Amino acid sequence: MADPVKPRSKRSGRSGGAAARRESRLRGPVVYLPNAIRNIPTYEILKQDGLEAIDDHAMGILETIGVEFRDDISAKIWADAGADVDGHRVRIPRELIRKLIATVPSEFDYHAHNPDRSVKVGGRNMIFGPAYGTPNLIDLNGVRRQATADDMRTIMKLHQVNPAIHYNGGYTLEPMDVDVPVRHLHMVESSFNTTDKPIMGSPQSAYQARDSLEMAKIVFGKDYLDKNVAMTAIFNCNSPLVWDQTQLEALRIYAAHNQAMLLSPFVLYGASSPVHILAGTAQIVAEALAGVAFTQIIRPGSRAVMGVAPMGVYMKTGSPTFGSPEVALTMYVYGQMARYYGIPWRTNGAKTGAKQEDLYAGYDSILKVYPAILGGCNLLTHCGGTLEGSLCVSLGKLAADGQQLQSFYTMLKGVRFDDMDLVLDDLAKIGPGGHFFNEDYTRENLPFLDEVQDNERFESWIATGSKTVGERGRDWCRSMLDRYEQEPPTLDEAKREELRSFVGRRETEINAGQF
Amino acid sequence: MADPVKPRSKRSGRSGGAAARRESRLRGPVVYLPNAIRNIPTYEILKQDGLEAIDDHAMGILETIGVEFRDDISAKIWADAGADVDGHRVRIPRELIRKLIATVPSEFDYHAHNPDRSVKVGGRNMIFGPAYGTPNLIDLNGVRRQATADDMRTIMKLHQVNPAIHYNGGYTLEPMDVDVPVRHLHMVESSFNTTDKPIMGSPQSAYQARDSLEMAKIVFGKDYLDKNVAMTAIFNCNSPLVWDQTQLEALRIYAAHNQAMLLSPFVLYGASSPVHILAGTAQIVAEALAGVAFTQIIRPGSRAVMGVAPMGVYMKTGSPTFGSPEVALTMYVYGQMARYYGIPWRTNGAKTGAKQEDLYAGYDSILKVYPAILGGCNLLTHCGGTLEGSLCVSLGKLAADGQQLQSFYTMLKGVRFDDMDLVLDDLAKIGPGGHFFNEDYTRENLPFLDEVQDNERFESWIATGSKTVGERGRDWCRSMLDRYEQEPPTLDEAKREELRSFVGRRETEINAGQF
Repeated sequence: MADPVKPRSKRSGRSGGAAARRESRLRGPVVYLPNAIRNIPTYEILKQDGLEAIDDHAMGILETIGVEFRDDISAKIWADAGADVDGHRVRIPRELIRKLIATVPSEFDYHAHNPDRSVKVGGRNMIFGPAYGTPNLIDLNGVRRQATADDMRTIMKLHQVNPAIHYNGGYTLEPMDVDVPVRHLHMVESSFNTTDKPIMGSPQSAYQARDSLEMAKIVFGKDYLDKNVAMTAIFNCNSPLVWDQTQLEALRIYAAHNQAMLLSPFVLYGASSPVHILAGTAQIVAEALAGVAFTQIIRPGSRAVMGVAPMGVYMKTGSPTFGSPEVALTMYVYGQMARYYGIPWRTNGAKTGAKQEDLYAGYDSILKVYPAILGGCNLLTHCGGTLEGSLCVSLGKLAADGQQLQSFYTMLKGVRFDDMDLVLDDLAKIGPGGHFFNEDYTRENLPFLDEVQDNERFESWIATGSKTVGERGRDWCRSMLDRYEQEPPTLDEAKREELRSFVGRRETEINAGQF
Repeated sequence: MADPVKPRSKRSGRSGGAAARRESRLRGPVVYLPNAIRNIPTYEILKQDGLEAIDDHAMGILETIGVEFRDDISAKIWADAGADVDGHRVRIPRELIRKLIATVPSEFDYHAHNPDRSVKVGGRNMIFGPAYGTPNLIDLNGVRRQATADDMRTIMKLHQVNPAIHYNGGYTLEPMDVDVPVRHLHMVESSFNTTDKPIMGSPQSAYQARDSLEMAKIVFGKDYLDKNVAMTAIFNCNSPLVWDQTQLEALRIYAAHNQAMLLSPFVLYGASSPVHILAGTAQIVAEALAGVAFTQIIRPGSRAVMGVAPMGVYMKTGSPTFGSPEVALTMYVYGQMARYYGIPWRTNGAKTGAKQEDLYAGYDSILKVYPAILGGCNLLTHCGGTLEGSLCVSLGKLAADGQQLQSFYTMLKGVRFDDMDLVLDDLAKIGPGGHFFNEDYTRENLPFLDEVQDNERFESWIATGSKTVGERGRDWCRSMLDRYEQEPPTLDEAKREELRSFVGRRETEINAGQF
């Protein structure tokens, strides 16, 4: 096509509108995007009677099969609340479930220590978060290796400057050079110190949950934290139908503290759920609702999210797979059920079993994110860089995945009739065979441009060194880390010191066996 | 996960149900899939009043701006039909457009010379076709080079054995070693000889169209061809609002022969259409309808398809981009408009500007295919292997893209309540903490498995040679070409000879300047 926008914009000496804004985004200050707002319809696979049928089956599972809460205290709590409890097996009448989930807020604010970075969860709001619990990375040199605490802080900085990543933390990279029993302290401290976005806490045991929340109290204050959500944590149901003791112990602490809990069945379709999309959905709805309802016994009104961590399964070895069409359909129906109950929902995004930034990494990532976007998901985890089914994060892919999130932002904005006549007047003026490059409207409304993607022709790509996507992504990361250092987020120095002192004290205690 | 399906299936000596069927698919006879049938809802961005508004704007464009039919004969045909014609500018009253498009069939059969391979176009039917007009390939050795006639035949064989590719031909690979003026003869002859699926003809000029149709008459018979669609051809509107002479000359011939025409505005969003999704959609609807209506003047009832070849544009150079969120939204609305008019619609699928089988090749391909799947597209071209925005086909990606089509087949099947109680009885029996690997229902209903994707863990992948996606895809192609040779499609020997003789005669004539 002749006469593309940018050269002309330079020649004309005009400000260039959106082109200039894009230029300044590439070179200038960091852009922070608010939570996305879904302005397109959700994709509805089932009609109302179908949703009622799934609800009926889920309730039937809870009433007749029941769920195991493998923890004496939790089983006792259920018995006291009116469930039919036999050992750890908890059968819950549908009336009780309905009464309990009625107090779950359909929307809540997720607070950052910089209020400008706070976001909304629920309703038409959608937020994106990073990968979670990953022991390896492909680093800025393109080398795959174990992650360290330094790497953890590097990736947190990248989350800070990644426009469409809304919260941070949650062991995106596990600091493998830090002892497991104290790892959570460093994760939470680094989250508060390197970013000013909302953060996650550790759900891995009662003491780790308590430590996470104590640190949140240092930053936000005890009273503030009691009223507001400043921390989320993921709790996986061990499908089918098991909530384990360590998860439950930590869950009770988060619920008591009124912080947001993502109650997420960990499902391998065909292994831990049946090879039947609707029966499988009924099962995971039952599992999630059992967890959600439990949080409301602990503290009515506490923020619970219907989550799900869905995968396919490679039947030959039992390994997880991603991009499964059955799982996609499950997600659409699960999202409908969350709306049916008026509860926010969460799933995970750009996951893949690929080992490199390759074709299947791209297929899988989009195939996982798309049902979340059209399915009205409210909180999407694992949006950045995941490879090997969460065992590795590629920094190159992290950059590219972030661009895709921004692309989905554009899609979520939807369509509008505003300016229609204005634009069609341009068409009339240009007439058959013309082009729109030079129209003011074009300059002021440039389409989405991916900053990592290479859009040159093959010959130009070769001539400029035939950079791989990984290399281009790592270039983007390096430039964004530079920008981070020019504009690092701040945390009150006293709080910073109090966090340091807390971590030091707890390290000593934990190493002495005082958990 | 413990105890995955396959080993146990072997130990138990059972037939293994779906596992055995999958095994036989990998080793046994070629599988041919019928056209997909969409059993999931379409995704509707606009409501009825929005569709009416787009219709009104499209009709307004046709009435007031008009479309250029840059061909004297075609302009005269429009004048005779009642349009307001000024030179080549044709302004068409909405009543005339509506009257003309009323005769377009909403559904038709697309016939192969083997009736078992015939498919349906329109309604809830969806078919997938190969790349189109590509001069280069990444071959079975992983080398990028110019395509030859041998390569063209190789890729046609791969289309034949690719279960989810429903038709063949259309210059997937341009035979660059064959002179341009006679290339169409070899393309059509090879299509008929190497496959028994439906094929495409050449739309590139009047004589090429005539030759294509003469060859179809040899295979199908003149009378049969007059009544039935056995050939499709793509006609691009040169957006904005121009139908060129060569396209129109060929179009008139296909319309007169009652063959299916894909009337496809060739749109770069922001260059040849405005940076406004709904205004852009109104424009391309107007362009497509002008072409569709024109076919009905030539022959009422002839099979016309509303097509569109949509791309984004890289404003710095004017190069096309793929995976654009604005284009995705355009496709959803365009699909709605096609249903509004009751006309089948076509777009293109797994296209990308990537140069390799990399992350962006995967992103782009799915981002292009998804709106076609949920948008109710009836005929999806470019589903196999495209790179470099159609300047290259990777045989490795061809294999992987084919697997993704099969995955979308599964998605199109949707969800069902059948067997729900049976499966939930299994859940009751298994109980909390169990697994579904050993259930009969699991064995008989195995989830979709991608035959090209690597599902092993990182360490196993390294130990087995860390094959790239390209290598795995090329392995798949080699094994499928073996199977092709074991089971090649047949064409009546007399017809084969008549085609050969026709090609020989026409080559001589064309080389002597007799087009």
